[in-house]
This record gives sequence, structure tokens and C-alpha cells, in this order.
Amino acid sequence: MKQLSEKLLEELVEDSLPYASEGKVRPVIPYYDETKKDILGVTIWTGDHCYHAGEQGMYVPMQSTAKIVTLMLALNDFGKDRVFEMVGMEPMGDFFNSISQLEKHNIDKPFNPMVNAGAIATSALIKGGNVEERFERYMDFMKKITGNPDLVMSEDVYKAEQANGARNRSLAYFMQSTGAMIMDPEEALDFYFRTNAVMMCTDDFARVGYFLANGGREPETNKRLIPPDHLRTVKSIMLTSGMYNSSGQFAVEAGFPLKSGVSGTIIGAVPGRMGIGIVAPAIDNKGNSTAGGALVKSLSQALNLNMFGVTDSEL
Amino acid sequence: MKQLSEKLLEELVEDSLPYASEGKVRPVIPYYDETKKDILGVTIWTGDHCYHAGEQGMYVPMQSTAKIVTLMLALNDFGKDRVFEMVGMEPMGDFFNSISQLEKHNIDKPFNPMVNAGAIATSALIKGGNVEERFERYMDFMKKITGNPDLVMSEDVYKAEQANGARNRSLAYFMQSTGAMIMDPEEALDFYFRTNAVMMCTDDFARVGYFLANGGREPETNKRLIPPDHLRTVKSIMLTSGMYNSSGQFAVEAGFPLKSGVSGTIIGAVPGRMGIGIVAPAIDNKGNSTAGGALVKSLSQALNLNMFGVTDSEL
Amino acid sequence: MKQLSEKLLEELVEDSLPYASEGKVRPVIPYYDETKKDILGVTIWTGDHCYHAGEQGMYVPMQSTAKIVTLMLALNDFGKDRVFEMVGMEPMGDFFNSISQLEKHNIDKPFNPMVNAGAIATSALIKGGNVEERFERYMDFMKKITGNPDLVMSEDVYKAEQANGARNRSLAYFMQSTGAMIMDPEEALDFYFRTNAVMMCTDDFARVGYFLANGGREPETNKRLIPPDHLRTVKSIMLTSGMYNSSGQFAVEAGFPLKSGVSGTIIGAVPGRMGIGIVAPAIDNKGNSTAGGALVKSLSQALNLNMFGVTDSEL
Amino acid sequence: MKQLSEKLLEELVEDSLPYASEGKVRPVIPYYDETKKDILGVTIWTGDHCYHAGEQGMYVPMQSTAKIVTLMLALNDFGKDRVFEMVGMEPMGDFFNSISQLEKHNIDKPFNPMVNAGAIATSALIKGGNVEERFERYMDFMKKITGNPDLVMSEDVYKAEQANGARNRSLAYFMQSTGAMIMDPEEALDFYFRTNAVMMCTDDFARVGYFLANGGREPETNKRLIPPDHLRTVKSIMLTSGMYNSSGQFAVEAGFPLKSGVSGTIIGAVPGRMGIGIVAPAIDNKGNSTAGGALVKSLSQALNLNMFGVTDSEL
Repeated sequence: MKQLSEKLLEELVEDSLPYASEGKVRPVIPYYDETKKDILGVTIWTGDHCYHAGEQGMYVPMQSTAKIVTLMLALNDFGKDRVFEMVGMEPMGDFFNSISQLEKHNIDKPFNPMVNAGAIATSALIKGGNVEERFERYMDFMKKITGNPDLVMSEDVYKAEQANGARNRSLAYFMQSTGAMIMDPEEALDFYFRTNAVMMCTDDFARVGYFLANGGREPETNKRLIPPDHLRTVKSIMLTSGMYNSSGQFAVEAGFPLKSGVSGTIIGAVPGRMGIGIVAPAIDNKGNSTAGGALVKSLSQALNLNMFGVTDSEL
Repeated sequence: MKQLSEKLLEELVEDSLPYASEGKVRPVIPYYDETKKDILGVTIWTGDHCYHAGEQGMYVPMQSTAKIVTLMLALNDFGKDRVFEMVGMEPMGDFFNSISQLEKHNIDKPFNPMVNAGAIATSALIKGGNVEERFERYMDFMKKITGNPDLVMSEDVYKAEQANGARNRSLAYFMQSTGAMIMDPEEALDFYFRTNAVMMCTDDFARVGYFLANGGREPETNKRLIPPDHLRTVKSIMLTSGMYNSSGQFAVEAGFPLKSGVSGTIIGAVPGRMGIGIVAPAIDNKGNSTAGGALVKSLSQALNLNMFGVTDSEL
Repeated sequence: MKQLSEKLLEELVEDSLPYASEGKVRPVIPYYDETKKDILGVTIWTGDHCYHAGEQGMYVPMQSTAKIVTLMLALNDFGKDRVFEMVGMEPMGDFFNSISQLEKHNIDKPFNPMVNAGAIATSALIKGGNVEERFERYMDFMKKITGNPDLVMSEDVYKAEQANGARNRSLAYFMQSTGAMIMDPEEALDFYFRTNAVMMCTDDFARVGYFLANGGREPETNKRLIPPDHLRTVKSIMLTSGMYNSSGQFAVEAGFPLKSGVSGTIIGAVPGRMGIGIVAPAIDNKGNSTAGGALVKSLSQALNLNMFGVTDSEL
Repeated sequence: MKQLSEKLLEELVEDSLPYASEGKVRPVIPYYDETKKDILGVTIWTGDHCYHAGEQGMYVPMQSTAKIVTLMLALNDFGKDRVFEMVGMEPMGDFFNSISQLEKHNIDKPFNPMVNAGAIATSALIKGGNVEERFERYMDFMKKITGNPDLVMSEDVYKAEQANGARNRSLAYFMQSTGAMIMDPEEALDFYFRTNAVMMCTDDFARVGYFLANGGREPETNKRLIPPDHLRTVKSIMLTSGMYNSSGQFAVEAGFPLKSGVSGTIIGAVPGRMGIGIVAPAIDNKGNSTAGGALVKSLSQALNLNMFGVTDSEL
């Protein structure tokens, strides 16, 4: 086990960057093209120190990393019982936008809040009189947990999400047909698309990870924003489903809660230790950043972050 | 957080036992019938103390709890890379004997070693000149890790497994047709059926859990039988897939590595702390003991065993 | 083989009516409730004679029987090659609103024009500047082929289709996501919902069947409205897919082109001989009228209508 | 509509042969390799005249064309009700060896007797004390309906079927697990593999087609071997499912009962008119001969064989 330092981080970034060539940049995201392919940036926040390496300051949309924030807010708004009446906790065993798993199992709720169907269902569980109010509450929460009052949604990304939202619409209306969608699907989708379009940099992503890893406290005030029980729930589900249908492999090779987005971002939460924010736009066919995934695994090994790893008492 | 004691354990057993009425005893297992329904027994082994509550000394077949032992032995025999060439690490999102997930994804290997297809594939990765030799090595390993030299396979259970093995044969031949089965399917199945038929009591199950939780050491000699890296792999996969398609829920509500069997047994491994062995024959439609599952969850809460729970530094 | 007469028809209706008790009336259709359950009416039109039995003059929505008219119009508008670029010809092997068959086979077009997905895709292949124009052309065609200038769409049924259209929307957006939907999905759905809401009685349904069975000629003028090649295509697809996932059974037991709708209607086209129109609202879980289906089979037997039956030369 | 002659047949063969290059010869069939790719032979038997074109006298295994003979024999042995208790009549909407359609629909019987699962289930419905007796009865029936007393099974093909039978074994054991297989699966498979290995040439295939098309009479004696009702059933199912998951397309483009085999053979039965036997080893990914399929379609068009085509009364 090595000591965390910017030098170490830079070495790991250098070793991971070549994996970017195995992925593809998702072209439907505005400003995303092949020029963004060979980029990898990381921030680690330990509560008293911030470590950086690689590309810094690039703002990218949250995409599916927003799913964990929506889940936290829904848990705060409606409580665990109500939320999991509407969405399951199980890994899906299929691609993030699968609809056949819903039909096959004839279920009245999507598999879990980390896949598209489940996150759209969760989006219907945020309090507010209309989508603007709901999303304003989401942004307030985001600003608090990141400590960044300047976060904004990109109108361009939001429009692109709307324009390319056919598969998500299909999921939403499918859920309406089974009773799993308790709101006008278009309104739930509108909220969902907006959350995907919030722009963040590695520092912000790392802050979200740290919030989860460290008791759900607002950085400024140290005030608890979400009870520990909800944090525990979110982190468990991140471990079993946060990296789509590579979650099992990441549980083995990284071994701590992670959530990825198709913008090539990854949020990591190492319980009691650190938050990790990564941006590396090239993704594999399952939706996970290739270079970012490699970095997460090498970080876990170098810093002994794997929760299933050998404890002191076992040595 | 409470202190572990036999008194506490008895209270939790008493609270969990009523859940037995929600399950069914699997009739194809010899000696299993409705008279076994209202039974719940547990052993916890912490390395220096053994706690018991409920029914003790009843010997039941390992069934799917054998899958974790087969995986350990395969990792020792062929190494991680070779094993995971032949079997995946991903939760399946379906019932333990699903075949359509294999066909749909057109994959050349089963989802993970905790479901039937994956365990049959892993059964082909145990060294030995024939099935007798392979199984003798398995029994030697079992006796060492439990510290119980008297373990035996039940001929009756083995015969019942053979007689009721149609679905498992279907899985094995399907894998042969895709190239995922590298041995005569009947020979792999023979090994698989034998491992399912090894008879154990809660003490033995607890010892297997402790072996996983505590560095993979032989109880007698404290000699390491399996490298820590392999233990880590097994425990991660138990967390994401050990409770079949309720694994996600158990990751949230219990939060440590578990493996269940349709005989109503559960093995728990709380890293660095304890091994748990449970026998409670009534199972739900996913294959998990209903009373045993309730006990695991209440134990986790009472003793703060959840790995995703709030750490001291978060309080 | 018996001689067709109203007396015979009345006997067959009487024998078939009891099957109504095995079905259920679809409650989301306006005015449809259990009081409509024990109804069975039939018209047979042979070109020179019209036979009636059972309930007459009840107007019910076309529902899925509209799919064959939409297909005829699309073939006329865009030709066979273009139409079957966008929709397949294969039986689906699943319920009429299945979405998983689309995802599993990763296809860029729905299975066939007789199931919901395929009919929605076909609805995008009707010429016209907007949905009103398209639907006006549809109604003109309907009036011509039935010889009934008074046909109208029910606003109530149309509104109910819109209100209960979640599953169809899901299918339409799924197809948009794969490129199988070349129009704004809402516009294609709007056309689709309208066609489902056209109100007809058994006489009208029989006229549509006769049009298909007898060269595609306008009854008034004997003018050919659709080329024989297109009729052949429509009738073949009716035989293999017109009765949803009971089509195989009806090919055996009835043996001529049929199309059913969830309003409990069936259109039959016996090549060169007759058109059959049936209304019997109680349907089975596959969407076919139970009493109507029984009547179709007994008609086939009594009048030797089965195309696979023994020909004179075989006797 | 043209007049059938050997000259016409030779022209159509010449036009169809180029489609062979789009297919692949199935290498697991003994003696089948790329040298067999550019072969196309056809026999048409009308009861009083035999027409030939292309390659003649090449003996190839029946493969799946045997499925229609097994079905006829099962119908004779157990009757329609009993046979269709064990196997369905519906097109499957999937590849011929699909297993997921069985699991998804949780059915206790396979879709139809023309796909592998269904034919294996039907193989369990042939009377006889053991597999040798059953197969002897099959061969007797084959010799009668072809009028060819010299038909034999190829030991090499039979051994190859056994050796490459993993997927079929998987299907058979799956059915055993659901109760759809009433015999030792290995015995049903043994019969199934033998039927696939019977060697025939285009003349023999044409005779089977003619038998179906012309009242089920033994050529020598004109004695009826199977009642007309069973013939009707077989022909209907051939039309809806005989060309695997291209059956819908062949119903449109050819429009009469057909059955294909992966040896590149096709049997056609034009009711009351003719039997067609085709050998053209190169097959597409659905299992149908490419050149053979093209020939069937052009024959239908040239000779007006399409049962859904315009009748005289329509002109």
C-alpha cells in the first residue's frame, strides 16, 4: 500500500490514459467529439486535502452520475419504503437501457435506480409543484453537497437529451403502462434530462463522492443533509449496480461504491476515506469510461481501497 | 450497536423464526418436508468464541453454498485469469437457473460462479484425473477449512440431484454448445451434484464463513490455504451475486458477503470479524431461506455489520 | 360439406356463443362492459348474397382489424419494397404488444404489420400532409371498400385510445430509437389511434373481408382499388400473423386469412368465396374473441373453407 | 402463368443458382464442404410426370425435413389431441434452436413441431418398444411414402449428429425439467438424430412433397396411409413454421407448404398439384437454402402456385 500524493496520482493517470483508445466518445453529447478522446483528469478529496492529476477544469455533463443525487433526494423526500415501492434494488444483468428485462419479469417496477428506467421512476419521487420547482430543489442540493454555488445546467445538453430521448421515452411510457410511473412521463423525463445536463468538473464530482463517503455533511457547515441510513443504501446500490453491467467486475477489481456516466465521468466514494472524481470521455459499449475505469482499479490497488481486501486482522 | 451474546442471538432467532411460514421446503431434497419448515439454527464463530442459538446439530446438504468452495478451489488450481476466462463476474438479473440470459447475450460464458450455470462451468476447473479424484480434493479442502474431518457426502442427496438434474443438464449442454464447457458435461455435472450433497451443520457453515472472513487460514495450523487476493474476489462476488436475484437487497439490508443454498442454508463472512452459519429450510421463490434471510438482516443491524454503514470517522 | 344458409349460420352461432363465457370484455373500450359479454353476431357476404345470424347492427371499434386496411393503403402509397423496408413479415411468437422481441433481436424493424409495433410503423407510411389528411384518405378508402359512406370515427374511443396508449407509445419511441420510425411518433400514434376508433358493424367487417377475398374491387363500381399482388401479400400475412400468437392454431383449425381486434371482432377472407364479419366482445388473453374464434373454426369445417384441406383431386 | 417443362425448370435453376454464393455450407455435416456450395438440383413430381433440372442423384441427409415425417407418424400413432398436448402450433419468432422463448413464456411445451425443441418432443410420440423399433417404423413409413425401398440412414451423419448434439441435448433436458419430455431425453434424441441422418435425393424429397400434396397415398398401391385431417394439419404448420423464422416471408413470396433442412434441402407440397424436392447445400443464417429458397419463389411466380394468389373468380 502506497501513500497518496499528487506524484503517485500522476503516475497512475499516465498508466491509465492509454486505455482511452479502447473507448469511443459519445457523439450525441454537445461538444463531445474525437478530440475529447485522449483526456483523463482526476480529483481526490480527503476532507482536508485535494489531489489533482491530468486534465483539470473541464466541465462535462453529469449524465448518469446524477442518478445517485436523484436517489438521495428521493430518499429524503419520500423515505426508503416509498422509494423502493417504486423501484427495485437488484442488478439487472443487462445494458443500462434494457426494456426486455422489464417485460420478461412482468414487474411493476424497474430493477434499480442506477439504470435508466429506475432513475426515471425515481425522478417522479422528487417533491415540487412542477418540474422547475423540482429541478430547483435538485440544484440547491447539488450546490450544497459540492460546495459550488456556480453549478449550472447546460441548455445545449438539455436540448440534446430531449432530442435524443427516444429510448428513455420508451422506458417511461412502458413503466406508465405497468403502473410503475406515477407522474406524467414527460414531466419525469424533463426532470431526468435536466439532471443529466448539469455541468461539473472533477473537483465537483470528487465532492459528491466525499459527501457519500463521509456522513452526508454539507462541506461549509458540516451539517448533516441526509441520514446515514440513506447514505448506506445509496452506497450499497452503487456497488452492486453503479457501473451498469460491469458492476460485478468493478466490485472485484475496485471494491468500493462507484457511479459512472456516459460522459465518461466516474464518482467514487471510499467509505470514511475519500471522494474521487474522474473525467475521461471515451467509454466502452457498456457505458463506462475506459481510462477512468482503469484508473479506479489501479487507485484501489495502490491505496488498498478495496472493501473486500484483507483487513489488518487477517494479516 | 449491541454486544454479541448467546442471549442476543436467541432473541434474534426468535424474532426471525416467524418468517419461516412465508417460505416452502424444497421437496426434492431427501428428508426435506414440511416438518422441517419451522426450523432455524445459527452458529457464529469469531475465531475465539462460538455462539449458538436455535436448532443445533442438524445436518443438511450444502446445495449452492458449495459454489463458493468450488470457486476457491478453482482459483487455487487455475488462477484468476483462467477461471474468469470461463465464467463472468456479473450479477445475472434473473433466477438462478436462467438459461435465456445466456442465449440473449450470446455469450460464451455464464454470468457468474454463484448461479447454477456458472458453478457448473467452475466445476470443470478443478484438477484431478477423474471425478472421484476431483471430488476427493474438494472434500480434503472442505475438511481443512471447516476443521471437521468427519464431513461426508450423502448418497441419497447425490442420487436425488442426479435424478432431478434436468435443468442443470440443460445448462451444461447449452454451455457445451457455445464452447463454455471444457469438459464432458456429465463429468462436470457429476462433480457439481456431489458438492451439493455434502452434509453440514451450522457449526460447519460458520467455519466456512470464518475462513473467508479471516484470511483463508486452516483453523488447526493457521496456515494460509488460499491467497488473500482470491478471498477478496470470492467475497466481492458473494456480495453482488451470492443471494441470487435478491443479492442487491441483501447488499443494502445486510451489507456483507453471503451465500445461500436451496436447503435453506446461508453462509455469512463479515470481513475481519466473524463467520455465520444458518440453517432454516423454508425458502422463497428466489431460493433464499426466509427466516435465515431475516436473521441475517437483523444481525447486521444489531451488530453493525454492514460494510456500507457509517464508519466512526463519519459520526 | 354443408350448404351455406341462414339456418346453418344460426346453428353455428348458437353452438359458439357459450365460448363467450371463457373470455373477458376489454373495459378500457368505451361502452364495453360485462353486459356485452354474451353477444355474438356474424355477417357473411358472398358477392351476391348476404347471410346474417346473431346480434346485428351493433357498432364497435375496428381496433386491430384496422391493421389490414392500413397495410393495404401503405402498399398502395409506397409499394411493397418500401413498406417491407420498414416492417417485417414474420410471426413474432409473442403477445401483440411485446417489446422484448424487438430488443432481443436488435432489429431495426418490427416483426410484422399485424402486431402493434408493426402497425404503428405502417401508420407512418400513409401519404398526406398531416394526420388529418392521412386519416381522411383512410376513411375514404374504408368507405369505398365497405360501400358504406356513413362510417365515422368515435371521438370517445379515440380519446380512450389516447388515454390508454402508454404501451403503444413505448413501442413507438422504442422504434424511433432504433430508426424504425420515420415520422414523429406522436403523429404516427395519432393516426393509429384514429383507425382503431372507426365504428363498424358485422356487415361492414364482412365487406372488408370480401374486398380482400375477391380481387380488391370497389363494390359499387367493380373498379380494382388495389393490385392483386398487394392483396396476396396482405392475405398471407393475415394467415401467419393475423390472430396474434394464436395464428398458428387458426391456420390449422380455420385455414384462411383472418384478422382479429380486441373489440372482439374478426374479419375473415376466404379467397374467391366470401367475406366474414364477426362481433363477439369477450376476448381471451391473447386478444382474440373466444366465441368469434369458435365460430370461425366451425364455419371452416362446415363449409370446407380450409385452404389446406383436401382438394377434389385428392379424394 | 407458364407451363411446367424441363426447359422452364432449367431456366429457373440457372437464375437461382447465383444465390448459392450468399449462403454457407454447414461444415458439421459429413462430406459437406465448400465444394458443395454451388450446387442446385430440383425434382418436381406431379403424379404422372417427373421433371428434373440441375444436379441429380446426390444423396444428402434429411436433417429438418424429417420433422414433417415424424409429425405425420406421431399423428398416426397418437392422434391430434395427444400430439398437441405435448407440442404447440405457433410460430416461434426466433431461431430454430432458441431456448429462451421456452423459458420466457414459461410454457410446458415447445412452440411447434417444425423447430428443434418441438421435433424432439414429437420424437417421443412414435410408438415402439425401443429406439430401434421406433426408427424401423419410421424407415418403413419413409420407404412407403417415397416408393423407394433402398433408403438408408448414414452412420457417419448419425455419429456427427450425436457428436454435435449439445444444443439439442440442452433443449431436450430443458423440456424434461418442465415436464414437456415424456421419455428419457437421450432416447428421444437418439431417434431424432437418426431421422436427420436418412439420405435422400431430390426425387425422394419430391415424393414426400407429393404425398402431402395429394391425399397421403402410397404411390405403389394408392392406399391412404394417413387421414386427410392429419395432412391438413401438417401442411398448415409447414406454411406458418416450416421455413423457420423466414416462414412469414415464404408464405408471402411462395405461398404453399414448405419445409427446409440445414443440409440445404427443401420439400414443397402444392396442394392437389405437385411435390417439389430441392437440394442446394448453401444456407443462410436462419437455416434455409439460399438458392433453393430463390428457386421456390420463382417457381411459385412462374407456375402461379401461391395459395393466396388471385383466383380465377377474382380476375
